[in-house]
Amino acid sequence: MTERSFQEYYPPELSYCYGCGRLNPQGHHLKSYWEGEVSVARFTPEPYHTAVPGFVNGGVLASLVDCHGTGTAAAAAYRSEQRSMDSLPTHRFVTASLRVDYLKPTPIGVELRLEGRVRAISGRKVILDIALSAGGQVTVKGEVTAVEIPPGMWEAARAALASGPG
Amino acid sequence: MTERSFQEYYPPELSYCYGCGRLNPQGHHLKSYWEGEVSVARFTPEPYHTAVPGFVNGGVLASLVDCHGTGTAAAAAYRSEQRSMDSLPTHRFVTASLRVDYLKPTPIGVELRLEGRVRAISGRKVILDIALSAGGQVTVKGEVTAVEIPPGMWEAARAALASGPG
Repeated sequence: MTERSFQEYYPPELSYCYGCGRLNPQGHHLKSYWEGEVSVARFTPEPYHTAVPGFVNGGVLASLVDCHGTGTAAAAAYRSEQRSMDSLPTHRFVTASLRVDYLKPTPIGVELRLEGRVRAISGRKVILDIALSAGGQVTVKGEVTAVEIPPGMWEAARAALASGPG
Repeated sequence: MTERSFQEYYPPELSYCYGCGRLNPQGHHLKSYWEGEVSVARFTPEPYHTAVPGFVNGGVLASLVDCHGTGTAAAAAYRSEQRSMDSLPTHRFVTASLRVDYLKPTPIGVELRLEGRVRAISGRKVILDIALSAGGQVTVKGEVTAVEIPPGMWEAARAALASGPG
């Protein structure tokens, strides 16, 4: 597959996210794609991403929901303007609020599937519903309120990168 | 300091949490303690725990809120029964629901402080408010609904551990 994920369109200075940044060597490298109106990401947790043995850690699951949410928010913003993700100006979202409901324990050792649906886009804000499933069963539901990155945060990221990233 | 953290009282088979398990070599090893009625944890993120350069990743922050919440829930359950954390039966909580509000970007490179307050305890459920601060400024607020670990999940953890943990 040669399709680029949403996250692979982020400009370099905004590509160090621990959850999804392509330039963060220690990160999870989550990748999200459109499948019609639904955004999809697949991720297989590492054996040490445990809650208790046999199950995936809730913090890692929250992190996947978070990054799939902000990635989908960016993709949805471009789509609403009918332009491609490599066109300017850049959309890049951060999380204002995250809610995660753990419906049942998520088994470790299988590929997880995240599906994102845009509930609302207005101005600089996108609200998304995320469902995470393991073996075809939804184990986690999430709601992400994403907002466009504040210009000051973007500038600070450039400055931090210039002084040496992690 | 010789005081044991809440998480250091968890039984071995429930001590592999990526966020706070003392037996998970790759984990964050969050440690929580009482300071009067407030539970406190301190954590300095790694340089690669970035959102964008200069700031801490939201998923990592959610993970800290999560583990500080479930740890505080366990400690509060023992305290409500006026018994110590090394007495039986064991209390160990998992997260039913997590809400995290990112009030402002959290700077990386400084020690973070989490404070937990018990809002309600009833039966097998504890609801907690968590505030996370950097340099004295609250950057994240969280709400954790924690429930006692289901017996089936505990049994499954024992079985998974017997067949080799991550």
